[in-house]
Amino acid sequence: MTQTTTPAWLAELRFDAQGLIPAIAQDADTGTVLMMAWMNAEAVQETALTGRAVYFSRSRQRLWRKGEESGHIQQVHDIRLDCDGDVLLLKVTQVGGIACHTGRERCFFRSLDTRDAQPAWVVQDPVLKDPDTIYHTPHA
Amino acid sequence: MTQTTTPAWLAELRFDAQGLIPAIAQDADTGTVLMMAWMNAEAVQETALTGRAVYFSRSRQRLWRKGEESGHIQQVHDIRLDCDGDVLLLKVTQVGGIACHTGRERCFFRSLDTRDAQPAWVVQDPVLKDPDTIYHTPHA
Repeated sequence: MTQTTTPAWLAELRFDAQGLIPAIAQDADTGTVLMMAWMNAEAVQETALTGRAVYFSRSRQRLWRKGEESGHIQQVHDIRLDCDGDVLLLKVTQVGGIACHTGRERCFFRSLDTRDAQPAWVVQDPVLKDPDTIYHTPHA
Repeated sequence: MTQTTTPAWLAELRFDAQGLIPAIAQDADTGTVLMMAWMNAEAVQETALTGRAVYFSRSRQRLWRKGEESGHIQQVHDIRLDCDGDVLLLKVTQVGGIACHTGRERCFFRSLDTRDAQPAWVVQDPVLKDPDTIYHTPHA
């Protein structure tokens, strides 16, 4: 980071032991909760400065500019902080209408069916676009 | 727990190193994101079985039956799991209309004002009820 001192607004955030904070992305128009991912301080700052959602990929251990491969960027209209200062909520416009890497509108596409004695996760939402056509970079 | 084997639906969840999973509570009628808290396996099971939100309090290190002190319980209508299996989303009815311990509808009552050179968190939502009248148990 080029910034040497932490701005006051950023110092109010309580990051976890890994330096991360959960960030929920909610569709600004429909209210649909699209996904939850993690941000480090740099991701929070870049998101606030650019108005485009940037997360921190825990699996890749690097900044993840949402949509960098798929083009499905998130334009951020509002950033909210919860009472404890340890969760963020973003109101976003999901470009392309697909937030999930499975090609669905949102990552929360399974719901728990408790009608039987054995509950089960049931897929509720359709795949809008084949993931193979979303991600063009070959998998290593 | 009385259960000795993990049910299949619960085994699909990916808990973190502390045995916890984030759970987002969203108002079933308005779509407002009320709060995010954590659940352990026991909390998830009790929530699914009883239809009432039960979290795990990290500060108190015990089950936290939402509303146990305030009466502001959450009736759970839908439990969703995300693509990675590591975040839950609950659609709830928030009894009393207050999810936050500050007496507000939701925990996300501050938003980032970026109009000035120095961004700042600004309280957007009113206190609906004095917290002192919500929690009757004296603080130790």
